[in-house]
Amino acid sequence: MQWVKVLGGAAGAAALLGLGIILGHFAIPKGADPAPSASASQDLDPEILEVVMGLLSASRIRENLRELSREPHPASSRQDEALVQLLLQHWQDPESGLDSVETSSYEVLLSFPSPEQPNRVAIVGPAGNISFSCRQSKENLTGEQGGPDVLPPYAAYAPPGTPQAVNAAKHQVAGVLVYTDPADINDGHSLPNETFPHSWHLPPSGVERGSYYEYFGDPLTPYLPAKPSSFRLDPDTAPGFPPIPIQPIGFEDAQVLLCNLQGPPAPAAWQGALGCDYRLGPGFQPGGMFADSQVNMSVYNRLELRNSSNVLGVIRGAAEPDRYVLYGNHRDSWVHGAVDPSSGTAVLLELSRVLGTLVKKGIWRPRRSIVFASWGAEEFGLIGSTEFTEEFSSKLRERAVAYVNVDISVFANATLRAQGTPPVQSVLFSAAKQISAPGPGGLSIYDNWLRYFNRSSPAYGLVPSLGSLGAGSDYAPFIHFLGISSMDIAYTYDRSKTSARIYPTYHTAFDTFGYVDKFVDPGFGSHQAVARTAGSVLLRLSDSLFLPLNVSDYSETLRSFLQAAQQHLGAQLEGEGISLAPLVTAVGKFEREAVALSRHISALQKGTFDPLQVRMLNDQLMLLERAFLNPRAFPEERYYSHVLWAPRHSSVATFPGLANACARALNTDPGSAAWAEVRRQLSIVVAALEGAAATLRPVADL
Amino acid sequence: MQWVKVLGGAAGAAALLGLGIILGHFAIPKGADPAPSASASQDLDPEILEVVMGLLSASRIRENLRELSREPHPASSRQDEALVQLLLQHWQDPESGLDSVETSSYEVLLSFPSPEQPNRVAIVGPAGNISFSCRQSKENLTGEQGGPDVLPPYAAYAPPGTPQAVNAAKHQVAGVLVYTDPADINDGHSLPNETFPHSWHLPPSGVERGSYYEYFGDPLTPYLPAKPSSFRLDPDTAPGFPPIPIQPIGFEDAQVLLCNLQGPPAPAAWQGALGCDYRLGPGFQPGGMFADSQVNMSVYNRLELRNSSNVLGVIRGAAEPDRYVLYGNHRDSWVHGAVDPSSGTAVLLELSRVLGTLVKKGIWRPRRSIVFASWGAEEFGLIGSTEFTEEFSSKLRERAVAYVNVDISVFANATLRAQGTPPVQSVLFSAAKQISAPGPGGLSIYDNWLRYFNRSSPAYGLVPSLGSLGAGSDYAPFIHFLGISSMDIAYTYDRSKTSARIYPTYHTAFDTFGYVDKFVDPGFGSHQAVARTAGSVLLRLSDSLFLPLNVSDYSETLRSFLQAAQQHLGAQLEGEGISLAPLVTAVGKFEREAVALSRHISALQKGTFDPLQVRMLNDQLMLLERAFLNPRAFPEERYYSHVLWAPRHSSVATFPGLANACARALNTDPGSAAWAEVRRQLSIVVAALEGAAATLRPVADL
Repeated sequence: MQWVKVLGGAAGAAALLGLGIILGHFAIPKGADPAPSASASQDLDPEILEVVMGLLSASRIRENLRELSREPHPASSRQDEALVQLLLQHWQDPESGLDSVETSSYEVLLSFPSPEQPNRVAIVGPAGNISFSCRQSKENLTGEQGGPDVLPPYAAYAPPGTPQAVNAAKHQVAGVLVYTDPADINDGHSLPNETFPHSWHLPPSGVERGSYYEYFGDPLTPYLPAKPSSFRLDPDTAPGFPPIPIQPIGFEDAQVLLCNLQGPPAPAAWQGALGCDYRLGPGFQPGGMFADSQVNMSVYNRLELRNSSNVLGVIRGAAEPDRYVLYGNHRDSWVHGAVDPSSGTAVLLELSRVLGTLVKKGIWRPRRSIVFASWGAEEFGLIGSTEFTEEFSSKLRERAVAYVNVDISVFANATLRAQGTPPVQSVLFSAAKQISAPGPGGLSIYDNWLRYFNRSSPAYGLVPSLGSLGAGSDYAPFIHFLGISSMDIAYTYDRSKTSARIYPTYHTAFDTFGYVDKFVDPGFGSHQAVARTAGSVLLRLSDSLFLPLNVSDYSETLRSFLQAAQQHLGAQLEGEGISLAPLVTAVGKFEREAVALSRHISALQKGTFDPLQVRMLNDQLMLLERAFLNPRAFPEERYYSHVLWAPRHSSVATFPGLANACARALNTDPGSAAWAEVRRQLSIVVAALEGAAATLRPVADL
Repeated sequence: MQWVKVLGGAAGAAALLGLGIILGHFAIPKGADPAPSASASQDLDPEILEVVMGLLSASRIRENLRELSREPHPASSRQDEALVQLLLQHWQDPESGLDSVETSSYEVLLSFPSPEQPNRVAIVGPAGNISFSCRQSKENLTGEQGGPDVLPPYAAYAPPGTPQAVNAAKHQVAGVLVYTDPADINDGHSLPNETFPHSWHLPPSGVERGSYYEYFGDPLTPYLPAKPSSFRLDPDTAPGFPPIPIQPIGFEDAQVLLCNLQGPPAPAAWQGALGCDYRLGPGFQPGGMFADSQVNMSVYNRLELRNSSNVLGVIRGAAEPDRYVLYGNHRDSWVHGAVDPSSGTAVLLELSRVLGTLVKKGIWRPRRSIVFASWGAEEFGLIGSTEFTEEFSSKLRERAVAYVNVDISVFANATLRAQGTPPVQSVLFSAAKQISAPGPGGLSIYDNWLRYFNRSSPAYGLVPSLGSLGAGSDYAPFIHFLGISSMDIAYTYDRSKTSARIYPTYHTAFDTFGYVDKFVDPGFGSHQAVARTAGSVLLRLSDSLFLPLNVSDYSETLRSFLQAAQQHLGAQLEGEGISLAPLVTAVGKFEREAVALSRHISALQKGTFDPLQVRMLNDQLMLLERAFLNPRAFPEERYYSHVLWAPRHSSVATFPGLANACARALNTDPGSAAWAEVRRQLSIVVAALEGAAATLRPVADL
């Protein structure tokens, strides 16, 4: 492979020098079996951590990215399968590979545009003449975006159809056109000379692809792994697909359509940067070029059962091989996908290379097992990761310590940004404090982070603020379905300088290596920063004697959820005679048990080492998150069973089931089923908190 | 308490002598803290096992039983609460108590007859005159069965009402009278001089009480612990209650009613031993004493929210306190409940006394924690144990090694009888082989057992046959809801000598201490045999370094389920194009992994002791049963989520979900929802078996 040859170049030389030093320092065992002895007391070695940080190479990540994004590689495509082989080759490398590697394939329902009949959007005059056509597959400005394998813009899982109408009323909508407004993605810039290739902004022809499936996981095999023999729902009646055709278009085409509409002005929040007043229609302006015309869209998307692969590589743990720290990213893109997902995969390959090399040289082996994963078909709905969690639900629930997700590793160059559940906050902070932020200033990643995202913590004062986990990437099935403490790590931008909702070429053909190299992260210093942060977190989780999951940090979250519930829902509940007192009691109990457990941890750390005592404590820490699972909490949701992080329909950060039920019960009669559901949800969260507090108690107590 | 004084008598002397010998043998530590050191390598000590077997005293069990059954003690009654205090006192005894004890109370929905308006069943003549009345609360023959606290016969949870009719057609049934036919319970004996007090047979006036609630657990708080603040269903619409009044009557009254019916003869299988030909009605014989009469029943049962307590006592594990071996029985009876449940509670108290004494003396402490439980409100539907599993679901799922249930410890004197999941077979066999069966013959309990219940095992040849676990006692929530390997142990009768479906005075006022002492187990040798067997099992599970759960024994079960599916369902499935091949593959995979794991166990047992290696293996053994859980497998059932042991509607021993779905699909159209459910059930069991096989693989493999 071309990529492997590149690795032998200048970038490799620096790393080899570093490795030489380490080899001297750690004195390679002479015997035939270079594995270090599996010591029950093995703990994180700060020198190894330092070595790993030093070996993680920005230029290697850059070369990884160039190779990974060379061709479009949507899920299940020939190029996607070629990347599976690339991953296998790397992870089976005798010098830098992992202990074991395997691919796992699922037969899943994807959705593709028809190669024979391109989707079309046009304006059709009263005589049936086409007076305007949206462009098809024309997102090529520098040559890097083109080629026969570029998937034309489409809305995955939108059904086929040829609706023709103009801005029909809400309940008669026949089809949907979606576009990305320059106000939302480009800070208002929309002209060719202020967008790519002249800046990182989305050019007028760029079209954002995406999946419009409502749930996640393979649509036909909910809760079951999508093996060839698995039971499948009938695609004609399976839930979650859009009911009407949808087609994405570029903002240059959207401008033609939107700026010629008649009718009352759209609300202020709907106005954008297309250079005209947006109107609601119906119909085009009389006397204008499209008078009496209609919009016609032809969508020919097709559902197809395809094989999609995960690649899984394992470094076997030395002392506790049955404890898994998982680290993953998806592999599939919509087009070239240099940022999404290859910036993350490039980091994954570099991190696995560095750790694999230490293992192969016999220098190091983590205390616990590390599982590296390259997921398939994420873009269609987190499919590869979800099927994996379905196939190994029992084993993962019992043994998984944490899941680290690095999908898009670099959105922009300003700061670290992390999402996760409270137990991972402390390990992220520890890692970020020891690594220098890229660029001038000499700040640590932590101190730099603190400047951009922060909050006042009752326990710690001003700290970087961790976002909560939605369902935007492959962490979703781990945290929501299996209750495995999870996080997502990236570098991102300065929110004071842009209001872009994401990097501008997201899911378009303009997301290429050249774009990353020139605009997103020249020099790849931010990629390296993410590799170091995620690598440090991975090492700490897999190698520390005492698991660095600070479950006490849930106390702060629970207390703030409780206060928000009291403030925003308390009066409504009181009016119905529902008391939050049991919730107050449960939160207090959790807090007290968490404090007591912290004291127990301190005592253990100071006392004589006892492998079973440490294992028992670590099991409490690992399994705390599982205590929040209730598979019956949200019967209308799919997979969501973590009672603290289910989808919430209001902006108040509180217990989601309770808040959602309150919103539904508002204005219903006192004895309504909606009020009964409020009471049920309150009991569910109380029971979960009581159960969680019980897992924190001294283990011989009930 | 009287009971405590009795313990100081002759029975105590023998035990104290035994204890003295042990004290000498084990050389009590001289220091202030007599706790043995918590050694990671602690293993079962055969001498301790021998000592425990020797200390378990038949006469103490007899005295326990006398005290426990002195008064009627239905759930939540004053006497039930007095027994809670009795248990607390024993388990807090400084000489023979446990490490910690607590009561846990739930507010649950029970059903009781009205003290003011007794339920009545009468025959009413055409003029409204009462020509016959069934007896009320007259089950007193020897004085031992009477008293103001005897709960009169009723059908718990049957609604109140006063239907009047004669044997209405199926869909117009207004009320139900139930009775226990002498053919089913007494081997046909029905005359006063051949029944109690002249034999152990049920006298004509005995009435079997029972609960007629369809599910188990508190009816108003499914899946939530019934804490005072918990959300409760509306009792008027909560599912599972009988829709029409029901009243149990004695067979002397049933004879009057049944033998005077007219109409066609009932089917042969419905005929009994009341001395007449049973007819179907409708109506009484014309010209007979009840011509033109109707049956009137008045039921005044009331639903009541009551507090019911569990009592929990813990012996803290020395090396692995976070691993729980649970041992329990319910405490509540219908009347005096000498057999049901006090025969089991008498054994529980004796076993906890013996183990508690060893702990208090500093002679012994088990490797893992032992949790003794006295459950409340079992008779109403396993309520106390179910609420416990709901309250601590997460913790129990993670930490419970096994659950040992000894409810009725002695039905009769012939043989051991055990039910359980395959992993507990081997530990039951090991225990039973080392203990002498009561009575003459000198056989071990195992060899005696083999004479009464046996099967030919492909792996082992002729072995005692283990029954499977239904929902007849408190093991149900442990195995079905939480997937904890469970068993139920008792002594029972010679099936060649009686066809009684259970001991004759079951759930009647005749189930008293005198009955047990004279007819069920004079000398209490069978009680002692059960105490020894269950005690040995408990010690092995809690104290063995390697958990004595032989998960490989599931292979035999799975293979037989598969063969039964192929034989009984194969043709039907084939006709629908459904292949069992994925199931064949999955069973084969499980078998291979089980064999490989057995080799791994042997190697570990021969190798150098490594506490973490043993813990990891034990976790695999403990958690194997959890891999069969799927909370979405049986949406119409409550709590049942173990895919191998859910209720099965046919007599073929195979995968229940698949078999039930096949039965429903029979004679439906090929594309029916019923056939889709067959496919779904097949996928569910395949996924569960694949997941179970995955948990048996070497832990660093995926």
